[in-house]
Amino acid sequence: MSNPTACLLVIGNEVLSGRTQDANIRFLATRLGEIGIPLREVRIIPDVRETIVAAVNEVRAAFTYVFTTGGIGPTHDDITAECVAAAFGVPWEPHPVAWERLAAHYARQDPPGDFNAARQRMATMPRGAALIDNPVSIAPGFIIGNVHVMAGVPRIMQAMFEGLAPSLAGGVPVQSRAVHAHGMMEGTIAQGLGEIQGRFPDLDIGSYPYYRPEGNGVALVAKGTDAAAVEAAAAEITRFVAGLGYTPIQGEPG
Amino acid sequence: MSNPTACLLVIGNEVLSGRTQDANIRFLATRLGEIGIPLREVRIIPDVRETIVAAVNEVRAAFTYVFTTGGIGPTHDDITAECVAAAFGVPWEPHPVAWERLAAHYARQDPPGDFNAARQRMATMPRGAALIDNPVSIAPGFIIGNVHVMAGVPRIMQAMFEGLAPSLAGGVPVQSRAVHAHGMMEGTIAQGLGEIQGRFPDLDIGSYPYYRPEGNGVALVAKGTDAAAVEAAAAEITRFVAGLGYTPIQGEPG
Repeated sequence: MSNPTACLLVIGNEVLSGRTQDANIRFLATRLGEIGIPLREVRIIPDVRETIVAAVNEVRAAFTYVFTTGGIGPTHDDITAECVAAAFGVPWEPHPVAWERLAAHYARQDPPGDFNAARQRMATMPRGAALIDNPVSIAPGFIIGNVHVMAGVPRIMQAMFEGLAPSLAGGVPVQSRAVHAHGMMEGTIAQGLGEIQGRFPDLDIGSYPYYRPEGNGVALVAKGTDAAAVEAAAAEITRFVAGLGYTPIQGEPG
Repeated sequence: MSNPTACLLVIGNEVLSGRTQDANIRFLATRLGEIGIPLREVRIIPDVRETIVAAVNEVRAAFTYVFTTGGIGPTHDDITAECVAAAFGVPWEPHPVAWERLAAHYARQDPPGDFNAARQRMATMPRGAALIDNPVSIAPGFIIGNVHVMAGVPRIMQAMFEGLAPSLAGGVPVQSRAVHAHGMMEGTIAQGLGEIQGRFPDLDIGSYPYYRPEGNGVALVAKGTDAAAVEAAAAEITRFVAGLGYTPIQGEPG
């Protein structure tokens, strides 16, 4: 049986404007691979209602899991929750448990914080949403259908994801082995490497040139869910590289 | 007249697997904003033919400019050029000028490099493509229709883009002013900030909390093509923040 798939929607003008270097894609790509839900697409989209609604509906139909980051704070540009409600065609309304958590959180502050209209928006969710706990700053994310709505701040997103991960029905973890060699050039290995790929059709065999002060080279990476095939491909790659007169080194260039 | 728009397709398994931290999105987002071609969407997609063809056709119809990074090297997983040809419904065939440049490049090497079948793929392009020069490693990118195909290695991509930029018909550069204040919380400024956004409907006013060892706060950013409106909004934001008892600081938190 093939693995489930994931798509990530990064919602927010700040990545598209260049203001912010995204720090969530790589974390989620790595963690999702580890639990056997390979990330198959990422879309970075702006805080524009029609765009968000259309993207949510397109990708939730195409992938097993959808994750979103960003746009669930209290300010006017935080419109993810209401857009997800619109995408599912359900009301966007106060969530009793989220409301209670946030009201209690602000009441506990010294002096007590104001659980005002802006903060109440963080407890307003699509009808039927299940909460994703936020151990960092209380305001929860949520799940509706196969869509998992998380915060954009990396520390909060990571905490939400780790709380969520055990409940995701993952597949076989993706295994990966890398071999690199200094001095190697893609143009001289391409044919042989393509033949190895041909013998391991269920693996992804990638070729990644690197350019470093200490010398250039290529890293070759075999990846897939069949651990034995990954090992066998890595062994073939190692022999192939040695046969060309280079010194194969296990792992990525350090 | 409104600005042209751009979409970036990042093509490659290595970003989706978490192996590689993308380093191209922020560069292109910033540079495109500077020349008035705001980046409106990014998609990161795998080295899968049907996915690339479908994505190219979808986004080239929806945006003024499409840029792609990745997948134009000599190895079996470099399939961007043939997929773009398929998307446009034209043959994928040797490009005479690219062929000549690469053949001469390998002939110049000492000892001469082999302009083999794998390297010849880098000179094989959609019929009718115009070249994008590659001053770093010779193998060119190309333009067909509104699609601009560039390398994935950041140093090469940046050189290609800078060569290309003067020929792009840009719009009005996007201006941006930031104001931040330590100790400020989004929940207490959201209503007033939303009112400022309401008075400047043509600007994007964003609110970005930050969490730093030296203290938390919020950065407020006004952005748009109308420089006078951006200045006026920044002045309003400054007065608003001061009126709440915080110390407004011009610019992003350092």
